[in-house]
Amino acid sequence: MAMGEFDLIRRCFAQPAQALLPDSQVRLGIGDDCALLQPSPGKVLAVSTDMLVAGRHFFPDVAPHALGHKALAVNLSDLAAMGARPLGFTLALALPQADEAWLGELSAGLLALAQAHHCPLVGGDTTRGPLNLCVTVFGEVSAGAALRRDAAQPGDDLWVSGQPGEARLALEGLWDRDWARASLTGPHGTQLRARLERPEPRLALGQTLAHLSLSTGRTLAALDLSDGLAGDLGHILHASGVGATLHESALPLSDALRALPTPYALDCVLHGGDDYELLWCAPPSLRDAVRAAAQDSGTAAHRIGQIHREPGLFLQANGGQRQPLAARGFDHFAP
Amino acid sequence: MAMGEFDLIRRCFAQPAQALLPDSQVRLGIGDDCALLQPSPGKVLAVSTDMLVAGRHFFPDVAPHALGHKALAVNLSDLAAMGARPLGFTLALALPQADEAWLGELSAGLLALAQAHHCPLVGGDTTRGPLNLCVTVFGEVSAGAALRRDAAQPGDDLWVSGQPGEARLALEGLWDRDWARASLTGPHGTQLRARLERPEPRLALGQTLAHLSLSTGRTLAALDLSDGLAGDLGHILHASGVGATLHESALPLSDALRALPTPYALDCVLHGGDDYELLWCAPPSLRDAVRAAAQDSGTAAHRIGQIHREPGLFLQANGGQRQPLAARGFDHFAP
Repeated sequence: MAMGEFDLIRRCFAQPAQALLPDSQVRLGIGDDCALLQPSPGKVLAVSTDMLVAGRHFFPDVAPHALGHKALAVNLSDLAAMGARPLGFTLALALPQADEAWLGELSAGLLALAQAHHCPLVGGDTTRGPLNLCVTVFGEVSAGAALRRDAAQPGDDLWVSGQPGEARLALEGLWDRDWARASLTGPHGTQLRARLERPEPRLALGQTLAHLSLSTGRTLAALDLSDGLAGDLGHILHASGVGATLHESALPLSDALRALPTPYALDCVLHGGDDYELLWCAPPSLRDAVRAAAQDSGTAAHRIGQIHREPGLFLQANGGQRQPLAARGFDHFAP
Repeated sequence: MAMGEFDLIRRCFAQPAQALLPDSQVRLGIGDDCALLQPSPGKVLAVSTDMLVAGRHFFPDVAPHALGHKALAVNLSDLAAMGARPLGFTLALALPQADEAWLGELSAGLLALAQAHHCPLVGGDTTRGPLNLCVTVFGEVSAGAALRRDAAQPGDDLWVSGQPGEARLALEGLWDRDWARASLTGPHGTQLRARLERPEPRLALGQTLAHLSLSTGRTLAALDLSDGLAGDLGHILHASGVGATLHESALPLSDALRALPTPYALDCVLHGGDDYELLWCAPPSLRDAVRAAAQDSGTAAHRIGQIHREPGLFLQANGGQRQPLAARGFDHFAP
């Protein structure tokens, strides 16, 4: 089916304007050379971009609805990690062919998540080419409230939300690895697959932590987990000039992960990637406030370790010695 | 050569921080989950995104320095078309392999243009995949000054900057078409190729037109030419609910275009694409002001037609009748 580029975009990505533009922050949406956004007074604009490539970030035969969800979710997760509130996003899309049914599903997945977070599609670009989705997301945050990678301090507790590791377990299951295969067909299979294909950006949690930052005058450190807990934590340690120790006994292990041999479960949790959970640091004096913030945002929060002056990343094993932990992540250009 | 993704990005896209961050509008650049930008008081944020795919938007063997330039230039051109001043940009990049020499040239072309327009790289994403560049650019403009597609009014003059058509002539020459081949080896060959490969975004012109909009209280219509003059003009006509007549005698024809048979020259000017010139509408009462604005910004401006109430797009041929002009553009999904 041949159709014009402009028609294609209009048909598949049309949004209920009123539903998606609840306030005046989008001054001009799709259709001009640029979108115009107006951050609230006293707020700064937070910007992030992520590119998803077929065969690398998703299976070529992934359900387009899930792909649409994930393309936006991983970007919203970056806003969550700054404590920002979403304002809108752009989508640039390269497609091998213009399949309207496929595009309709993609846009449905994308726009459902956009609507849930009041984050309208404000512009984009569509072209023919190998399948590629590039989302750029815009949010706002009070200048003094933004969560930063360089703000960890010795003595801080280390926290993580939700259940890191399950996305990796699902991925290994889809790759048909011996040790992971049974997980996808077991009682937790649906949940595991959703962790991989439909991550929920922790926006409410990020915003409550940013409020905590602002109200206490203590900037908190945070990031979102995309390449694996240990590797991503390394970015905070490097940026803040500190070290950390994780406690194996404190790491969250869901039933699905507990069913694995321990080394596999730990590998999923510590080096899995694709989690889109938040990892953050806060002083012990804020423990109750952090727990309340997590509860308010409906997200589980686990205190998993400490930040210390001594450089390096360590794991305090169950009933054993403290050992160095490689800050290895999932690296697209590794040999 | 194998190297980490993070090292690769750091090495090739490192910027002289002081040179690129002359003021405080970039609160936080590369390295955290999001960049933080602070538009000036009273300004709104202008956002645009464009994706460039190998084999479609550029030849796979294009010089990487020129490719870097063009990837940013086509996005800055969208800011120019709104009258916005650049604040920064993000780059998402998919690469078949991590070739440091090639990446060094790409980033040199990109960052030279960025520096010329005080538009720092504030964030990005790099992944392995078929070659794809997605740039998202951010600018600021006074809320009442933005040039818009829906602001054309009957009686307005129609203006275009520079020389549309030359980029197309260069492209046809590179495709080795009989009628275009000689152009590239002739005295204008270097200039033609630069038009295609190194377009200059008309930022100064766009900003002076936006000032004119603000100072006269009359919002001006404008866009940048990417798909061809006639097709792009169609977007203004559609958005503004008006028609237009172009005068063949008023269309600018450089020596290189004049050397072609007239139908080919007209096709290049009217339907060429890849021009990245500005097309705008302004009332006749502002003719002198428009000429002064163009002169101030060092850009040629040509008055090529009129906007009228009667719908449709027409060409007043030299010594002939007024005839309908197809608003066809270069359409990536056309059969």
